[in-house]
Amino acid sequence: MSTLTLSQYSLVYNAFSFVFATMFASFIYFVLARQQIAPQYRNALTMTALVVAVAAYHYFRIFDSWQNAFTISNSGITPSGKPFNDAYRYVDWLLTVPLLVAELVAVLGLARAKATNLTMRLAAAAALMVILGYPGEIASDNGTRLVWGILSTIPFIYIVFTLFTEMSSAIERQSPEVKNLFRITRMVLLITWGFYPIVYSLHYLGNFDANIILGVQLGYCIADVLAKAGYGLLIYQIARTKSELVEPAAVTPQTVTAKT
Amino acid sequence: MSTLTLSQYSLVYNAFSFVFATMFASFIYFVLARQQIAPQYRNALTMTALVVAVAAYHYFRIFDSWQNAFTISNSGITPSGKPFNDAYRYVDWLLTVPLLVAELVAVLGLARAKATNLTMRLAAAAALMVILGYPGEIASDNGTRLVWGILSTIPFIYIVFTLFTEMSSAIERQSPEVKNLFRITRMVLLITWGFYPIVYSLHYLGNFDANIILGVQLGYCIADVLAKAGYGLLIYQIARTKSELVEPAAVTPQTVTAKT
Repeated sequence: MSTLTLSQYSLVYNAFSFVFATMFASFIYFVLARQQIAPQYRNALTMTALVVAVAAYHYFRIFDSWQNAFTISNSGITPSGKPFNDAYRYVDWLLTVPLLVAELVAVLGLARAKATNLTMRLAAAAALMVILGYPGEIASDNGTRLVWGILSTIPFIYIVFTLFTEMSSAIERQSPEVKNLFRITRMVLLITWGFYPIVYSLHYLGNFDANIILGVQLGYCIADVLAKAGYGLLIYQIARTKSELVEPAAVTPQTVTAKT
Repeated sequence: MSTLTLSQYSLVYNAFSFVFATMFASFIYFVLARQQIAPQYRNALTMTALVVAVAAYHYFRIFDSWQNAFTISNSGITPSGKPFNDAYRYVDWLLTVPLLVAELVAVLGLARAKATNLTMRLAAAAALMVILGYPGEIASDNGTRLVWGILSTIPFIYIVFTLFTEMSSAIERQSPEVKNLFRITRMVLLITWGFYPIVYSLHYLGNFDANIILGVQLGYCIADVLAKAGYGLLIYQIARTKSELVEPAAVTPQTVTAKT
């Protein structure tokens, strides 16, 4: 761990705490909101809740690890010798990224066999993408980083391809009320996921420079909030709109009419 | 505790954190998924949720114990003198392993008296298996380890025998939609439980060698995830399929037809 100023340290420290609070609050929201969704779409909300719960746990650990990586006293801030554990992010993504694609398939409402098949392929590609990225994240030279970065991009391209070919026909068959929401959600997935390789690439500029450490940590924080909590809200919107089409009374707020 | 390198230490550290996150997420999943199951199979999901909740707690403690067993500073990693507490695993298994057999009996849907009798016998054998294994796990010589290992195998053989004789007739009476799922689940139980004695046997190769410590800890991590969360998902699949046979509308995902 390189030397940071106290204010650089505090910025990252507060960002981690912010993301924990956001994920934790999102978890409570999704669990409660789930009850107002028609039963056939609840599984999508369950997965959305799982994603932010797992992320909350990891940000709690990341926060702790960041704290322990430095010693702060009256004489200033110095690295403690305990490593900041980057692996938490990858363990997190290994669990959550397959769920993010599964959420999207779950709200599509496809026939079971088709849904299972599509979920399996997308989730496997997502897991592979994370696994292949890790050796590059911890690499100490740019050559190794580039090789793993490229390998990790192959399953990413497969996912994007599947989302924009095979899934397009499923989206076209959706009712007009949600068709556009699906297109937006798919685009949010693409853009937020595309943010990760940009942050990853910051490592090329120097692994132990304080500004690079700040950029990587804050970049991943922003990407995680958008790709998990933000994306989850869109999945909820879709599930809610579809639920209203099935059983309007259960989900639509109604004005009470006085019985006179 | 023998001396490990920092990367060996980190590998086990991250494996423990990964298993905690998996068990914790599985707990949330089973609690939420339970609501979509017909009432008569919810008890099985309750036990499934308990198993992963207890495992999550123990992995949280195991993670802490692992951290405290070492001192990391700028001068490297050394044993702290605080012992790594292996007993957490056995306490965990004492609570969870009887529940794993109880889950399987619960989704069979047998008559109450028959179910209680079968559960009691299998759960008692499972608890005995764990209790008899512990003196061998902490033994310092291979003779003692072998004796307790063999004693622990006796109730294991009784369980396998019961699953493949007495339980077979109950499985044969299941509806065709779940018959195969039951056979797969029983096989997963057999294979994942068979993994534990293999990991246990690693101790014969040397108790304090760093690679043995890694093998034992990572081996138990993999076995626990498969035998608890993975097996639990199969129990959920059975309960869900059976629920659909009872009350299709409540659980089957349906395609929304546009109201035009």
